[in-house]
Amino acid sequence: MNTNNYCVIMAGGIGSRFWPVSRSAMPKQFLDILGTGKTLLQQTFDRFIKICPVENILIVTNSRYNELVQSQLPELKQNQILLEPVGRNTAPCIAYANYKIMKQNPKANVIVAPSDHLILDEPTFVETVKTGFEFTEKNNVLLTLGIKPHRPETGYGYIQIDNEEQVSEIEALKKVKTFTEKPNLEMAKVFVESGEFFWNSGIFIWSLSSIMRSFKGSLPDIDGLFEAGINYYNTDAETDFIEKTYAGCRNISIDYGVMEKADNVYVLCADFAWSDLGTWGSLYEKSEKDESNNAIKAKKILQYDTKNCIVDVSDDKLIVVQGLDGYIVAESANSLLICRLEDEQKIKQIVSDVKLELGEQYV
Amino acid sequence: MNTNNYCVIMAGGIGSRFWPVSRSAMPKQFLDILGTGKTLLQQTFDRFIKICPVENILIVTNSRYNELVQSQLPELKQNQILLEPVGRNTAPCIAYANYKIMKQNPKANVIVAPSDHLILDEPTFVETVKTGFEFTEKNNVLLTLGIKPHRPETGYGYIQIDNEEQVSEIEALKKVKTFTEKPNLEMAKVFVESGEFFWNSGIFIWSLSSIMRSFKGSLPDIDGLFEAGINYYNTDAETDFIEKTYAGCRNISIDYGVMEKADNVYVLCADFAWSDLGTWGSLYEKSEKDESNNAIKAKKILQYDTKNCIVDVSDDKLIVVQGLDGYIVAESANSLLICRLEDEQKIKQIVSDVKLELGEQYV
Repeated sequence: MNTNNYCVIMAGGIGSRFWPVSRSAMPKQFLDILGTGKTLLQQTFDRFIKICPVENILIVTNSRYNELVQSQLPELKQNQILLEPVGRNTAPCIAYANYKIMKQNPKANVIVAPSDHLILDEPTFVETVKTGFEFTEKNNVLLTLGIKPHRPETGYGYIQIDNEEQVSEIEALKKVKTFTEKPNLEMAKVFVESGEFFWNSGIFIWSLSSIMRSFKGSLPDIDGLFEAGINYYNTDAETDFIEKTYAGCRNISIDYGVMEKADNVYVLCADFAWSDLGTWGSLYEKSEKDESNNAIKAKKILQYDTKNCIVDVSDDKLIVVQGLDGYIVAESANSLLICRLEDEQKIKQIVSDVKLELGEQYV
Repeated sequence: MNTNNYCVIMAGGIGSRFWPVSRSAMPKQFLDILGTGKTLLQQTFDRFIKICPVENILIVTNSRYNELVQSQLPELKQNQILLEPVGRNTAPCIAYANYKIMKQNPKANVIVAPSDHLILDEPTFVETVKTGFEFTEKNNVLLTLGIKPHRPETGYGYIQIDNEEQVSEIEALKKVKTFTEKPNLEMAKVFVESGEFFWNSGIFIWSLSSIMRSFKGSLPDIDGLFEAGINYYNTDAETDFIEKTYAGCRNISIDYGVMEKADNVYVLCADFAWSDLGTWGSLYEKSEKDESNNAIKAKKILQYDTKNCIVDVSDDKLIVVQGLDGYIVAESANSLLICRLEDEQKIKQIVSDVKLELGEQYV
């Protein structure tokens, strides 16, 4: 295995769209949300140990989740768990990892990935990442993985490719024409039919030198904040330095701060049965369904005249559902949500209301 | 207050149609199901202390509920709580109370009533019962209270009156022509329009001598079983005697065993805003509704786009409902039911399934 390969797993999110099963004290990436026996973080880790040496895998998460990461990934040393005192979106998270890795190996090739996605075709994924590494270690480029869209999904961002130019001998590698926000259904249909648009997976591959150069160009303030700690990374002084640095750091995503501005951005198009599992609907789609088209995660359940529902209740709870069609029924830690599956985009607002009206302890 | 007035409150039922809020360990009559601050049993008791001396009020219940009755009605002495080792329907329950009262006061006038009904117009109720007592203490009759029907309810039994004969100076007092089972909707509409049919409240008034005479005539076997204990009632030997007697006693209702066979049955027609609260639907009707027509009993609830629902969840539970129309959402002691209000008659079967598939501890 190439000892220059590094992996940064971003695991700081709180997954509020899966409330009440995903809670700020126990977000989605730490849950076995598909009932497979492994949490999403563990599944992500398992994919990357086929690509990077285990000691080159870094997890960036909120400091409150340190024990969760330790217990779910006992293979890791504490120095591999990067603790953010507050969430500041993906750009600061990556800047922190950049310097941490630079102190260990300036020749690193890095893949940055979310911790809470589903990838079913792991061999194709591993093959794709290896192809990506081969290209990025020799070229000053920023690479993102694009997923061939199977349906006009309105919950994802899309990447439009530039089909004119063949950029390398790798056929699936394309220059990026535009990044687009989540489209409406009509637009999404046009995207999918055109063959020019791919889902934005949020998985990035680059050499450490390329991404650091981009930070210096596009986000010099953030880069400067983290550069100032160059003597502290991997020492006892790191925690204090990071504490202070995050407090003064602005909130900005890598997409907005770097990718959408850079002119050396490429997309590697692939199809490895990916889902961001960002919503109950996407979880429902990826879940095994019974003969009534219900995705059930509950130990004690009786169902009558119920179809097209997703039910996720704790094992000690008995649940009886009757006469429901197309609902989410989710229960955890003394909170219960019943919501139409087609209205799941309202859950984010609901969680915000819950926090406001009933308090932090419920979210 | 007439010291011959006695009251027998039947409180042995398990109220399975209100599952999971009503449980065999804590049935409906022991719950403050309307959120008024008093349980249904306490409300029933409060009505009768306006009619009978408190020491003349007897509660008949299953022995497992003894502590519940003691704690909810601390005014009662243990000798006023009649404990059935097993439920054998209403006829044995009344036979037991008959002998218990006879040992105390053979001249008693008795009202027998369920413990879990709702009566909103208490002054009219008290007036009606007094009228009933006046008639029954002077006549060898069995009196039942009939409720003027306000809608073609299919969940109640009906009593048809004999309008030809004016039986006394009490205008509302009628001879009974027939008792009918729960009708279908078409039939119920005819009943209500005719003006000849009244809801069967299950509340009975009679003199002790009249009901004992009827038992001897219609249910001599059951009467004989309880007569055999004449020396044991109100002594230390009562419990043992009752234990043995119930084991050998058949299950039969007072309606079927006595009322439907007797030729001295009268009905006192009244309208005191009564409901048997037998189903979630009847509870919903009697509950205060919000502007979306929801009857909510929950401390921590957020609702969105939800109407015509009844929600009853424990105070420590946070519930969010979205996009529901016409459902029961009921939660208690780690069991959760979501069921269409119009399908509430299925709950009895559901509870039976729960018992069979998951065990007694859930019902």
